[in-house]
Amino acid sequence: MARRFAVSGIIIAVFASVLYADALLAQFRLDAVRKYRQQHEKAILQQLVEFLRIPNVASDSVNIWKNANFILDMLKRRNIQARLLTIPGSPPAVYGELPAPGAKRTVMLYVHYDGQPVNPVQWASDPWKPVFRDRLPHEGGRVIPFDSLPEPVPGDWRIYARSASDDKSPLIALMTALDALQANRIPITVNLKFFFEGEEEAGSPHMRAFLEKYKDLLQADVWLLCDGPVHQTGKKLVYFGARGITGVDVTTYGPARPLHSGHYGNWAPNPISQLVHLLASLRDIDGKVTIDGYIDDVRPLTDTERQAIQKAPNLEQHLKNELALTWTEGQGRRLEELILLPAVNFKGLVSGQVGEKARNAIQTEAKASVGFRLVPDQTPEKVRERVEAHIRKLGFHIVHEAPDLETRRKYPKLVYLRWEKGYPPARTSLDLPVSKAVIQILEEVRKEPVVVLPSTGGSIPMYLFQEVLGSEVILVPMVNHDNNQHAENENLRIQNLWDGIEMYAALMARLGEVWR
Amino acid sequence: MARRFAVSGIIIAVFASVLYADALLAQFRLDAVRKYRQQHEKAILQQLVEFLRIPNVASDSVNIWKNANFILDMLKRRNIQARLLTIPGSPPAVYGELPAPGAKRTVMLYVHYDGQPVNPVQWASDPWKPVFRDRLPHEGGRVIPFDSLPEPVPGDWRIYARSASDDKSPLIALMTALDALQANRIPITVNLKFFFEGEEEAGSPHMRAFLEKYKDLLQADVWLLCDGPVHQTGKKLVYFGARGITGVDVTTYGPARPLHSGHYGNWAPNPISQLVHLLASLRDIDGKVTIDGYIDDVRPLTDTERQAIQKAPNLEQHLKNELALTWTEGQGRRLEELILLPAVNFKGLVSGQVGEKARNAIQTEAKASVGFRLVPDQTPEKVRERVEAHIRKLGFHIVHEAPDLETRRKYPKLVYLRWEKGYPPARTSLDLPVSKAVIQILEEVRKEPVVVLPSTGGSIPMYLFQEVLGSEVILVPMVNHDNNQHAENENLRIQNLWDGIEMYAALMARLGEVWR
Repeated sequence: MARRFAVSGIIIAVFASVLYADALLAQFRLDAVRKYRQQHEKAILQQLVEFLRIPNVASDSVNIWKNANFILDMLKRRNIQARLLTIPGSPPAVYGELPAPGAKRTVMLYVHYDGQPVNPVQWASDPWKPVFRDRLPHEGGRVIPFDSLPEPVPGDWRIYARSASDDKSPLIALMTALDALQANRIPITVNLKFFFEGEEEAGSPHMRAFLEKYKDLLQADVWLLCDGPVHQTGKKLVYFGARGITGVDVTTYGPARPLHSGHYGNWAPNPISQLVHLLASLRDIDGKVTIDGYIDDVRPLTDTERQAIQKAPNLEQHLKNELALTWTEGQGRRLEELILLPAVNFKGLVSGQVGEKARNAIQTEAKASVGFRLVPDQTPEKVRERVEAHIRKLGFHIVHEAPDLETRRKYPKLVYLRWEKGYPPARTSLDLPVSKAVIQILEEVRKEPVVVLPSTGGSIPMYLFQEVLGSEVILVPMVNHDNNQHAENENLRIQNLWDGIEMYAALMARLGEVWR
Repeated sequence: MARRFAVSGIIIAVFASVLYADALLAQFRLDAVRKYRQQHEKAILQQLVEFLRIPNVASDSVNIWKNANFILDMLKRRNIQARLLTIPGSPPAVYGELPAPGAKRTVMLYVHYDGQPVNPVQWASDPWKPVFRDRLPHEGGRVIPFDSLPEPVPGDWRIYARSASDDKSPLIALMTALDALQANRIPITVNLKFFFEGEEEAGSPHMRAFLEKYKDLLQADVWLLCDGPVHQTGKKLVYFGARGITGVDVTTYGPARPLHSGHYGNWAPNPISQLVHLLASLRDIDGKVTIDGYIDDVRPLTDTERQAIQKAPNLEQHLKNELALTWTEGQGRRLEELILLPAVNFKGLVSGQVGEKARNAIQTEAKASVGFRLVPDQTPEKVRERVEAHIRKLGFHIVHEAPDLETRRKYPKLVYLRWEKGYPPARTSLDLPVSKAVIQILEEVRKEPVVVLPSTGGSIPMYLFQEVLGSEVILVPMVNHDNNQHAENENLRIQNLWDGIEMYAALMARLGEVWR
């Protein structure tokens, strides 16, 4: 009996010391990566600035190719076997390979290099001319010229430009992680592949074609997606799913030409009135979707998923204060729960003008842009079907092409719906070995628990990697949550870049050791 | 018995011949006016072009004064005793007097010289650079340089500029009518006064102050308002009332900064959702006002008014075809009836962007501009009271100043209402001698029945002339109905200018004879 305990004791001791040695080694390597970064801060930022200077709206094909070639060049300079993957009509994807001698697993690192369209008049500075500020623009932040940046660069300062966060800086973090490992002769322990997409913000219309055309090349045991923001507490975050997305532009019609509201108002159909009634019927003020059968397709959460949400820090009060809110949609449910539900969001609304510029006129048309966030097992097709059935029930006649006057003369309540194709949601199980390994490595880097969420509220075409390639997919974001992504004054907090470099370096060096 | 018949016969014959002579004389004078116009077409248009070149938004004080001085100069060159009337903070009003020796009645001629704000990007050409076109811009109309205009200028061609119709061309018609009468030595038979307002399109905020300050100067037996379009058939039209007006800019609030719709949507309050629910609650798709008690203040029509409406040409099918409509608001009631009812019109709506520019973001605010048209006995105060009670019942907290973040943190559903002051409606009786005289003279000019309507659907601060001065008020419009007033590509059909000259000349020369 005693002997058995002794043997167990020895086994435990050996095991513990191996674990300890392992952790010590990890810490040693992390320190080396950090030191490398500290010695190269301005060079790293310089490269990010150059990258951000290239406009990157997916539809701007000249510039989008410039981005791709810029990235290709970054990969090649790091001795990564790299090339552009092409599909006609799409921005190229940038692909690279870096084998790890003796490694059993292959990890694909994904970033998208395109950005959301910009409305420059709303920006405090040109979205394509990156600037550093010591505080936020509305807090009176000063622009700091690059040459005047102190060293070390204060971690709370930010760089402002389209895609500063979403999603160019993670790409720079990956490159710097490689540089830091190489400079310190720290080996990677998994084979690395890179896939950098050029039209994610345009809804990834060619992603399936890429995955199918380059199916063999793109095989990996797991895709790690370096996109989206970290937790609002600043804690690192791992997501195991993403919501799907679709959207529709809605146009309603009034008279063929604008009419004086006094002479014709309340006789001529008011397109704004039709639009607001249509939109108001889709959801109530509290965000509850009021489209028949809309939530019938929603799969209930698993117990593990529910536990993970409960463990996540509760930020309601903090966020409400930061955002000047005293109420939220969702009847009191917390954010982490709400993003696991389907959502109907109104993105924009335009007809005529308001304020001083408003005219006493009946407009010829009114337009709205509506976004849908999908959760398993919703699909864009099912969403579209249910939304259209709902709109027809309101008495509208739906067309899918902009109607000519003849068509407008034909149908009393006419609505033109232009759907974006979108894609379905996806989830990876929290209980897979790779899921656990990623969580462990991030907790080593951060020396604290990371926030584990079953899904991001955002949308990434994760389902395709699962569906076409059969790969697992996990999201490992690095950028600050208050980055204004998709809006004006998008920015990256410098410290998040520094932390991202360490996180990605740790994953490259540790995954082969921890993932058993 | 026979003698009595004979005497009656003689009396009738004498009476008839006097009437006939009277009509003959009228026709003779009308021919002289027309001939004058035919000999001066390009000079008349030249003066209109110069006038239209001066931007005339009421808030643009530099240019609005230029307009006033331009008009002052036109009056003085016609030996009219003229001056600028001023009220601090207001564009000046231009006033003039032209006495008719021996005349018993005084007629005030009113025009407003300011115009609606413009959104130049929506115009086919610069709104402040008048151009002539042979057809409408969307029908491929060519721009005809002034020097290439044929003579006679084709009556169906149009001149395009802000205020071409609303309301600068009536002012040129009045000046030309005076020129034509003077050139032919045709005397005016009523004392004429002129009052040209400079902020009608801004809601006439200082009209009461003008009338009160210059009460003695502005006395007249009747005010004839030369504003608004003629009937859609092209028939001349006399209005005996105008709707009142008020309006409100509505702003709803989301988070303090724009948020990613995936990460925060359906948690962060969507300002567009709040706005569309608020707006949709004000009226249904068919235009029925759904604000509690809103129509309680509406005075029923008199029999004479109801008869006049019934006699008006029915244009429903024609207009629907022209405007590419197959339905109208108002549950099948005709236009002439609907403009005698109160109306709620949505003028504009702005939040975020739509189409290619739409971003997946939750906006910080959403704005709408709502217009109200009032009929007797509604008042702006009563409308505002009922609308605010309605909005409060929806659960909104109303503020009347743009809220700061502290206020936004305090109230769950916050709405900022910025009311325009507006003014009440007014009506003049159809049965007054002056009403009948005006109708008779217009029918002499046109040689056909004119359309008589109890009220225009538009708004002019008629009530003030009645309330402050005790004057009767009648509207005698001249411009084409399809003039795009208040919108882009505002225009005047040249023939309407020619007809307007004849109409105003006839009123000046005949009113003293016919009004008994």
